[in-house]
Amino acid sequence: MKAHILTIGDELLIGQIIDTNAAWMGEYLTQNGVVVVGSSSTADEEESIRRAIDHALETADVILMSGGLGPTKDDITKKTLAEYFGLSMYFHEKTFENLTKIFARFGRSTTEAHKAQCYMPEGALIMENKRGTAPGMWFEKEDKVLVSMPGVPYEMKYLIKNEVLPKLLQKFKVSPSLYKTIQTAGEGESRLAARIGPYLDQLPKHLSMAYLPNLGKVRLRLGIKGTDLSSMRIELDDHVRNIVKMIPELVFGYDKDSLESVLLEVFKKNKLTLSTAESCTGGHLSHKIVSVPGSSAYFLGGLVAYSNEIKHQELKVKQETLQDYGAVSEETVREMVKGALKAFESDISVAISGIAGPTGGTEEKPVGTIWLAMGNNSNIRTYKLQLGKERLKNIEYTSNFALNKLRHFVLKNYSQEEEA
Amino acid sequence: MKAHILTIGDELLIGQIIDTNAAWMGEYLTQNGVVVVGSSSTADEEESIRRAIDHALETADVILMSGGLGPTKDDITKKTLAEYFGLSMYFHEKTFENLTKIFARFGRSTTEAHKAQCYMPEGALIMENKRGTAPGMWFEKEDKVLVSMPGVPYEMKYLIKNEVLPKLLQKFKVSPSLYKTIQTAGEGESRLAARIGPYLDQLPKHLSMAYLPNLGKVRLRLGIKGTDLSSMRIELDDHVRNIVKMIPELVFGYDKDSLESVLLEVFKKNKLTLSTAESCTGGHLSHKIVSVPGSSAYFLGGLVAYSNEIKHQELKVKQETLQDYGAVSEETVREMVKGALKAFESDISVAISGIAGPTGGTEEKPVGTIWLAMGNNSNIRTYKLQLGKERLKNIEYTSNFALNKLRHFVLKNYSQEEEA
Repeated sequence: MKAHILTIGDELLIGQIIDTNAAWMGEYLTQNGVVVVGSSSTADEEESIRRAIDHALETADVILMSGGLGPTKDDITKKTLAEYFGLSMYFHEKTFENLTKIFARFGRSTTEAHKAQCYMPEGALIMENKRGTAPGMWFEKEDKVLVSMPGVPYEMKYLIKNEVLPKLLQKFKVSPSLYKTIQTAGEGESRLAARIGPYLDQLPKHLSMAYLPNLGKVRLRLGIKGTDLSSMRIELDDHVRNIVKMIPELVFGYDKDSLESVLLEVFKKNKLTLSTAESCTGGHLSHKIVSVPGSSAYFLGGLVAYSNEIKHQELKVKQETLQDYGAVSEETVREMVKGALKAFESDISVAISGIAGPTGGTEEKPVGTIWLAMGNNSNIRTYKLQLGKERLKNIEYTSNFALNKLRHFVLKNYSQEEEA
Repeated sequence: MKAHILTIGDELLIGQIIDTNAAWMGEYLTQNGVVVVGSSSTADEEESIRRAIDHALETADVILMSGGLGPTKDDITKKTLAEYFGLSMYFHEKTFENLTKIFARFGRSTTEAHKAQCYMPEGALIMENKRGTAPGMWFEKEDKVLVSMPGVPYEMKYLIKNEVLPKLLQKFKVSPSLYKTIQTAGEGESRLAARIGPYLDQLPKHLSMAYLPNLGKVRLRLGIKGTDLSSMRIELDDHVRNIVKMIPELVFGYDKDSLESVLLEVFKKNKLTLSTAESCTGGHLSHKIVSVPGSSAYFLGGLVAYSNEIKHQELKVKQETLQDYGAVSEETVREMVKGALKAFESDISVAISGIAGPTGGTEEKPVGTIWLAMGNNSNIRTYKLQLGKERLKNIEYTSNFALNKLRHFVLKNYSQEEEA
């Protein structure tokens, strides 16, 4: 099955928003054996949309469109598609019911403008959108398929996962391919390549490997093509095991695992609790921890101690420590951990203090200097990072670093398991 | 001048990297009066590249290509372009000199493979790349122009700014266009449309408007086309003023403003300090606040009170309140605000407690029930949100809601200014 991704919206062409939908679709489709042969973006304008569809159908079996739907888009996309496929419009009762229900939940009523949105092309399959008001539409013509979806990312993703891909896999053959992602943290792409590169160079042609680095983490995606899924799976798992053996301390999980989801498992298994004390990351670490459902099982809370006053008052960091060593120092993060252990009565605490940037550095402590400490009542470990000048990148990298080191701390000090 | 942006690379189609080059080019070209009529991505493969060029030239005067050059790409793009324009290849001495110089800087010498990279299509204009080894190439055919650039973002940007755009503006006429974005929060797309729609419907043809919604915020992008930039600017500003007058309480800024950057300004201007007390958002609100450089000017710190114990111990929420009304209640967030005002000695505090989901709701308090409180020592306001079941969406929406209501709180209670 060959697919073309078509995203609609002037805002894409003028660069007001970056086309993350196309990237997500490309990745998800590829992982599921669909070959993406092209991707394009076009204006909310009839002639452009028609032309883009014609072009795409020259090489693709399937066009996956997102965007151009919704109350204020004048429904140009929907009208264009109805005309393109020679379909008339009718009032789709179920879409209106869904919309009314969603509005009622927010205590709001619908207007005539909303009713106008609920006209659909007769003969297209209407796919219920459980995440929003605009449904997906599935058109067929001479063995080709076009699917139109809203541009709101989580609505589009919902439709692709639950409606579109399952239907496509019924209709079209895909040449089986499998992927397995090894999630690593703690080394960059080049150092990883130095350790596993020689092995990868010897892999047969039907196996492929991609490095996907992202601020302290590198995903290794191993792919295999073939004909028989069960023997492919065995072969793939074999190579995964071999690679993991070369870098055991760097691997924290597989596929959809995240550092934060793995941390929840590690803490739960060892019946431990955690608290945080953050300065420069400003709550980003606790936000990541809490982003996983069920994190209340181990996370008690955190303090964002942005000012020195708060570090002293709430975490009992000594005034002399702040004066003698500064807020960004090993001594300060050590005392922050001790303060957090006491305030939150948690088994383990982690503390972060640094200069996130883009300004505020000194010669001795340039922008990107970040101190971390973590530990329990008997043992505290500290780390110093020297990062760049980009504030948000520094915050994200530091949070990832902390999550990974917390995982190591528990495995080393509490767990009976080998680190793996 | 009509332009098409063409990015080359398998890694774009399989979603391994997000196409930020296309977005940057779209924005930069639009700002400089070039109309971007389309954008597409294609594989590193001859037939696909040829087809993409043919398609693009149907509507565009200029194709701006990036990617597909460089040592590991086998130079498919360059060969394809030479054939497309019927040009033979020759050894380009200057490119090799430049490459040798760059390598020498890193203490490296060049190999035969590097020499192979320096063959260029005879008749194309070679544009020196002062940021890397692969130069840009400018092709002309029947009044149409195609420019090929490397995919490395800062190399591409250098070439566009210093070589490509100046040459294009000499060759083609541009019809200037201007854009201004009005940033709003507090109403959804449909309700906004109900208030400003009648005005927008009467706008002359050379003005355009787009709604860009995002979890509690909607950006309104107003565009104008014309011939004289200064009169266009006056006309655009006039319409912006008129629109803002219809929805004054919803507008928080313009263009690159964010709720968090505006909040910093509002607090600084009124010399106020802020603290946060978060439960279900887990530090996401404080993270947003701290993501703006300079936020230490008003933000003292926050407490992530995830467990009830911490709400009681650190924020002095009464045990009876937690028992009688529950952690997700108006009474609890009220006491959390009072506790945070005391603990952090800030002028203003904000508190959030809710059920972020996806599970954990009850009949009385379903998933997505979120209580907020904000205030000072004499005045506390509370809000209840009833959101959906998606954890991260609920967290993001709630943080945006809190930032916007904090802005209103300061403007209403401290500022001499009218809300605008």
